[in-house]
Amino acid sequence: MTAMTREELRARVLGRHDAVPDERLRTIITKLIEHLFAFASEVDLSPAEWAAGIRFLTEAGHITTDTRQEFVLLSDTLGLSMLVDLIGHATGQGETESTVLGPFWVEGAPWRSAGEMIGRPEDGEPLHITGVVRGVDGTPIAGAVLDTWQAAANGCYDVQDPNQPKGNLRGRFRTDQAGHYDIWTTRPVPYPIPDDGPVGRMLAALGRHPWRAPHVHFMVSAPGYQTVTTHIFDGDGEYLDSDTVFGVKPSLVRTLTRTEAVVPGRGDEPISCYALEFDFTLAPAE
Amino acid sequence: MTAMTREELRARVLGRHDAVPDERLRTIITKLIEHLFAFASEVDLSPAEWAAGIRFLTEAGHITTDTRQEFVLLSDTLGLSMLVDLIGHATGQGETESTVLGPFWVEGAPWRSAGEMIGRPEDGEPLHITGVVRGVDGTPIAGAVLDTWQAAANGCYDVQDPNQPKGNLRGRFRTDQAGHYDIWTTRPVPYPIPDDGPVGRMLAALGRHPWRAPHVHFMVSAPGYQTVTTHIFDGDGEYLDSDTVFGVKPSLVRTLTRTEAVVPGRGDEPISCYALEFDFTLAPAE
Repeated sequence: MTAMTREELRARVLGRHDAVPDERLRTIITKLIEHLFAFASEVDLSPAEWAAGIRFLTEAGHITTDTRQEFVLLSDTLGLSMLVDLIGHATGQGETESTVLGPFWVEGAPWRSAGEMIGRPEDGEPLHITGVVRGVDGTPIAGAVLDTWQAAANGCYDVQDPNQPKGNLRGRFRTDQAGHYDIWTTRPVPYPIPDDGPVGRMLAALGRHPWRAPHVHFMVSAPGYQTVTTHIFDGDGEYLDSDTVFGVKPSLVRTLTRTEAVVPGRGDEPISCYALEFDFTLAPAE
Repeated sequence: MTAMTREELRARVLGRHDAVPDERLRTIITKLIEHLFAFASEVDLSPAEWAAGIRFLTEAGHITTDTRQEFVLLSDTLGLSMLVDLIGHATGQGETESTVLGPFWVEGAPWRSAGEMIGRPEDGEPLHITGVVRGVDGTPIAGAVLDTWQAAANGCYDVQDPNQPKGNLRGRFRTDQAGHYDIWTTRPVPYPIPDDGPVGRMLAALGRHPWRAPHVHFMVSAPGYQTVTTHIFDGDGEYLDSDTVFGVKPSLVRTLTRTEAVVPGRGDEPISCYALEFDFTLAPAE
């Protein structure tokens, strides 16, 4: 009797899934098994390497809580989250490109007025972000909502940092009748993703760093349009070419202009600050 | 500026791993990313499906303890464990085929004498297993150790069942000068793998059952030879064609012969029982 081959085993495992009742699940499990088998077979995965993989997943599971999601970090650092974002959101109509949501978005950020400053003096150098929200046909969208959030100068979001008031560096702005928005915030800084768990050890073994390029988050929505979740990146910031979650897309990078202006809440005299313009383009709802 | 494509993202993620210091790790991570991207892209994995995958892994991590390993169950039920076993152990020299170790092997099983019965009357119908351990060149191996273990009539191993004495249906036997071994045990029964967690729910969604075909475990070793970890399957048992961990290989299946014999510990008269012969063949140590 001849010994079972890899190909026979593969055929047997795939054959067991010929009759999966749900068609979509059948497609997904079949492709998953095909690629799992191809991966293990192409690298000749050893029992010791398999065991290391089991330990890695176990540790990732054990460090994961309601506020720490190691499997999302794993997906992010392998680029899978960005791929799923592309698959799920890109329409090819010229809309603003999306990027990862990240773990720090909070529902119900405070409403802000046009021109309001969302950061404190200690949160960093003032940054004025202005622009227009339009449809892909160029029509300005009045009343679009820009939900924005970012980390402070210490690299922490308000929800991570007991020293920041709730809602700090976070807010919802509306566009005016011309589709224009006007936000004062602070210049973003780079920060590392949580790297004290198995994903951090993986990055170290791979010779990679855990840093994200400096960015301001935006979720822009309007009735009749698809919501876009994205970042604006500081074009002079560190890690643009090596953002650890692969979130940087060239169209989302802007060079900040150094200028002087009267900054809300920072006195009546012009002070040194930065400015950038970014127009958002939304695809029509499906 | 054109939007980033899947192919550009893939190239960027792979490119980040060109300089991984350890060559073997570079090979593994590169293939892993290639197949992860191919899987997600070929099925157009949606953000909702991705989120379901993250939840699945999180639940698997949270149910996993020192005595419950959901990630191993996942690997087993997707056939990966059998593939890694093939990759790691098959030498192609005609040795006895291996199969999964499973979670119930215990180091230091009690030593037994040739012809000793390892089960109690309530553990099932007596089964006499005999045979010879040989090298691939046909030479009988004296003093080879056969470490054997199996579940009782209730489908539980001693370590799962407070009503079984420690070491029940478990033991180490040695071959005699002619390489012959002689074991009395009980006829094995099918049992389900733990199916109260995410893997059980996965099997249900796939239209699969959680049962293992009835088997007796063996780990056979001798100095100068490669250890083989395998099962003998009951040829009349249920689930041979659908063993949930894909552990069955045709060369490991034996039809039991019904016979009458004097059974150790079951009186002095011949009683109804079963017999099978199985010769183990070991590859030389590398």
